[in-house]
Amino acid sequence: MTITITAFEHSPDRGQGLARDTRVRWALEEVGQPYEVRLVSFRALKEPAHLALHPFGQIPTYEDGDLSLFETGAIVFHLAERHAGLLPDEAKARARAITWMFAALNTVEPPILELTTARILESDKPWTRERLPMIEERVHDRLKQLSARLGGADWLDGAFSAGDLMMVSVLLRLRSSGLLDAYPNLAAYVARGEARPAYQRAFAAQLAVYTASQPPAD
Amino acid sequence: MTITITAFEHSPDRGQGLARDTRVRWALEEVGQPYEVRLVSFRALKEPAHLALHPFGQIPTYEDGDLSLFETGAIVFHLAERHAGLLPDEAKARARAITWMFAALNTVEPPILELTTARILESDKPWTRERLPMIEERVHDRLKQLSARLGGADWLDGAFSAGDLMMVSVLLRLRSSGLLDAYPNLAAYVARGEARPAYQRAFAAQLAVYTASQPPAD
Repeated sequence: MTITITAFEHSPDRGQGLARDTRVRWALEEVGQPYEVRLVSFRALKEPAHLALHPFGQIPTYEDGDLSLFETGAIVFHLAERHAGLLPDEAKARARAITWMFAALNTVEPPILELTTARILESDKPWTRERLPMIEERVHDRLKQLSARLGGADWLDGAFSAGDLMMVSVLLRLRSSGLLDAYPNLAAYVARGEARPAYQRAFAAQLAVYTASQPPAD
Repeated sequence: MTITITAFEHSPDRGQGLARDTRVRWALEEVGQPYEVRLVSFRALKEPAHLALHPFGQIPTYEDGDLSLFETGAIVFHLAERHAGLLPDEAKARARAITWMFAALNTVEPPILELTTARILESDKPWTRERLPMIEERVHDRLKQLSARLGGADWLDGAFSAGDLMMVSVLLRLRSSGLLDAYPNLAAYVARGEARPAYQRAFAAQLAVYTASQPPAD
């Protein structure tokens, strides 16, 4: 059965790898599963055919035979559960790795997304200049705690896991803000994630979509 | 082995059941597992003993023998995986129920939390009056999509699952806003969740903590 995921036809991040299909591509590469990608236009995201796959009209989705899933966290977990490479075998270590997946998505990412929203969606609002430092402070609160927990370890709990895949992906959103610079161990952690061959392949694959969508140079 | 969870000594919601220990209590009641509760003061949340259990200094945590977990989503999933009652047995239905857990926490809850932040943490800011309608619109976007998907069904995908437990818990945060009133099927869905005996027991247990913490009436 061929796995098919969806991705933006024109990713708003211009190939920086921040669209969520990169997380799923990375997981697929870590577990060594081939996949196909169906590109979706912004208009098609809100049309019935796509909404049947993803009720919130987003990417990525995942199809494998008659199973279709949405939500990056759920897709990565599904892959991690069925293939070796993203979750430890030992039950307690496995539960802790899953904990880090949820922590990345539900505790660390929300203030980071709030920062993105303020910078992009509310960039023209009169209050944004005064609000930004407040939101950055909320992000720093999380980063300080995460940095303290990681300490000098390579990964959050023993070997690399789906929890690290998700946390690194979430932290990558901060690159352009410079906020990670205050936490050398977190910056090194992110770099360690990016250096993984599976991440490199995933990044290259999403960048190729963006590059192909650009008009040829003169 | 006794399961021990943590909860606020003084819940900021004054027993409305919105603190996240209610979600874990609900899951424990659905699967019929007894548990003990250790109450934690706001000060103790940020002290080393608690940070060792929960790196972000929050509640709830979960301890069972030498396994300790944090993150509500991870705790509920751990319970759902080990005990009957919260996840279907059939593999595809199980993967879809897990998808709804992630959707509740990562797609539906973030704009709802943004609304709470604006109303509470930024209530004294000059921009909040103008910002609130924008944030409410983001919440409505999600509610419209969720309402369309739920349609006339009782639960999101077949029988009640951990996905519904999490989605109902997230939507309960909107009660005081009145935003759910525009979606009769979502309001009925939330009421259906609250009517479950397991929810009733969980709600009563967290309310008892709040009631006991109040000074006696004259």
